Amino acid sequence: MSKIITAAMLVIGDEILSGRTKDRNIGHLADVMTAVGIDLKEVRIVPDEEPAIVNAVNALRAAYRYVFTTGGIGPTHDDITADAVSAAFGLPCEYDEKALALMAQSYARRGIEFTDTRKRMARMPKGAVHIDNPVSVAPGFRIENVHVMAGVPEIFQAMLDNVLPTLETGTKLLSATVHCPFGEGTIGLPLAQIQKDFPDTIIGSYPKFQEGSFWTELVVRARDSETLERARRAVEEMVKAITTESSA
Amino acid sequence: MSKIITAAMLVIGDEILSGRTKDRNIGHLADVMTAVGIDLKEVRIVPDEEPAIVNAVNALRAAYRYVFTTGGIGPTHDDITADAVSAAFGLPCEYDEKALALMAQSYARRGIEFTDTRKRMARMPKGAVHIDNPVSVAPGFRIENVHVMAGVPEIFQAMLDNVLPTLETGTKLLSATVHCPFGEGTIGLPLAQIQKDFPDTIIGSYPKFQEGSFWTELVVRARDSETLERARRAVEEMVKAITTESSA
Repeated sequence: MSKIITAAMLVIGDEILSGRTKDRNIGHLADVMTAVGIDLKEVRIVPDEEPAIVNAVNALRAAYRYVFTTGGIGPTHDDITADAVSAAFGLPCEYDEKALALMAQSYARRGIEFTDTRKRMARMPKGAVHIDNPVSVAPGFRIENVHVMAGVPEIFQAMLDNVLPTLETGTKLLSATVHCPFGEGTIGLPLAQIQKDFPDTIIGSYPKFQEGSFWTELVVRARDSETLERARRAVEEMVKAITTESSA
Repeated sequence: MSKIITAAMLVIGDEILSGRTKDRNIGHLADVMTAVGIDLKEVRIVPDEEPAIVNAVNALRAAYRYVFTTGGIGPTHDDITADAVSAAFGLPCEYDEKALALMAQSYARRGIEFTDTRKRMARMPKGAVHIDNPVSVAPGFRIENVHVMAGVPEIFQAMLDNVLPTLETGTKLLSATVHCPFGEGTIGLPLAQIQKDFPDTIIGSYPKFQEGSFWTELVVRARDSETLERARRAVEEMVKAITTESSA
C-alpha cells in the first residue's frame, strides 16, 4: 500500500507579488518534496498583511499534513510572519529565551550590538520549536505542522535541510519521461487511452514550443515501479506507432 | 484620490508542484501588473484536479477584481481547466463555434488534420469571450472577471498582451530603491520610524546575503510622487547617518 503525505507552501512577501524579487524557493521546495516522497499539493503567495497570512495559514494547515512558509521573519517592521502565525494559532507571540541566548552569543562573538531590532527575530508563538539557521543564527520555528522559514534562498535551503529529517515521508512518486516529437493534438487521443488503461498512474503531457513548432514531454508517474515501467512502455510504443504512421 | 485595482493569479499544473517545470509566468505577470497599475494581491498554484481548481477560482474571483489563470488549456486528458472553470461558474463547457472555425482554417492552411483531440481546445464555458492566441491559434478565454490563458510562457505572454488593453488600471504604485550597506538588524528601528512618519507609503526591506554578510535593498512605494520623494529622502538620510556613525 502506498502512503501519501501532503504538503503546502506559503510564500509571504510584497516583493514577490510586485515582481521586484523573483521567487527561487518554490521550485526548490517542489524538487525536495518530490525527492523525499511528499506531495506538494498547493502553493500560495500572499502580501505582508496579517489577515492574508492568517487566513492562508489556517486554510493550509487544516488541509495538508505539512505547511512550509518562507519570508517575513527578519527584524524590520514589514516582517510580520511570527505575529501572523501566532495569531493564526491563537497563541501569544513571545521572545524565545533560547533564541535570545543563541543570538546574543553570536552577536557578541562578532562584536555586533544586539539591538532591540535584532531581538525581534527571537519572537515566535509560545511553544514553538526552533528550526536551526546555520547561515545567520536567528532561527526559524515550527508550531504544530507549520514550519516557518526565511525567504532568503540560502537560509531557506539550509533551514529546510534541517527540517527534512523530522518529516514523515510517503511512498515516492516515481517518474519516467518519454520524449515525443509530436504536438499534443496528435497524441491526445491514444495518450488518454493509456491513462485509462493505467488508472494507478498519473500521465502528464507538457507541450514545449520551440522555433515555431510544438513537441511534447510525456511524463508517467506511479508509486509502484512495475506499473510505472508498463505504462512507460505503452507510451513509448504509442510514440513509435505515430512515428511509423507519419513517415509511411 | 488613488484608485486601487486588485488581481490574483492561479497557476494550474502538476508539473509546477512536482518541480519538473519551473514557473516562469508568475514573475512576468507580477512585473506587468506593477507596470500598468494593477495590484497583484495573491497567487495560488494548484494541481490538475477539478475540485482544487474550482475552489481556487471561486475564492479568487470573489475576492479580487481580476483573476488570471495559466495552464491546462491544451488538448490532452490532463488539460481540464476549461471544464473546471465552467464548473466554477455553473456553466456548461461547450465547443465554441468561432474557435472551431478559426482552428479549422489554421490547421487546413498548415495541412494538419483537425482531430477530435485538437477540437478539445475549442471548448470553453458558454458565453466566454476569446483571448486571441497569435502564437498557436487555439484561443484562451475570459468569463466575467476570470482570464484563462496558456501555461507555455511564450503563449501566455502573447495572450496577456492582448488582455491588457481591456483591463481597468489603477493609480500606479511608484517605487524608489535605496541601497543600504547595512543588515536589517542595524536599520530596523529608524526604518520603522520612517514608515510611521509616512503612513501613505509602503516601505519594504529586502535582505540580501552575499559572501557571508548582509546588505539590504530598501524600497519605498507610494501612489503619489511627492510623498514618494519625501520618504525616499528620509530613508537615504537614515542610511547616511548610520554610515557616519559607524565610521566615526
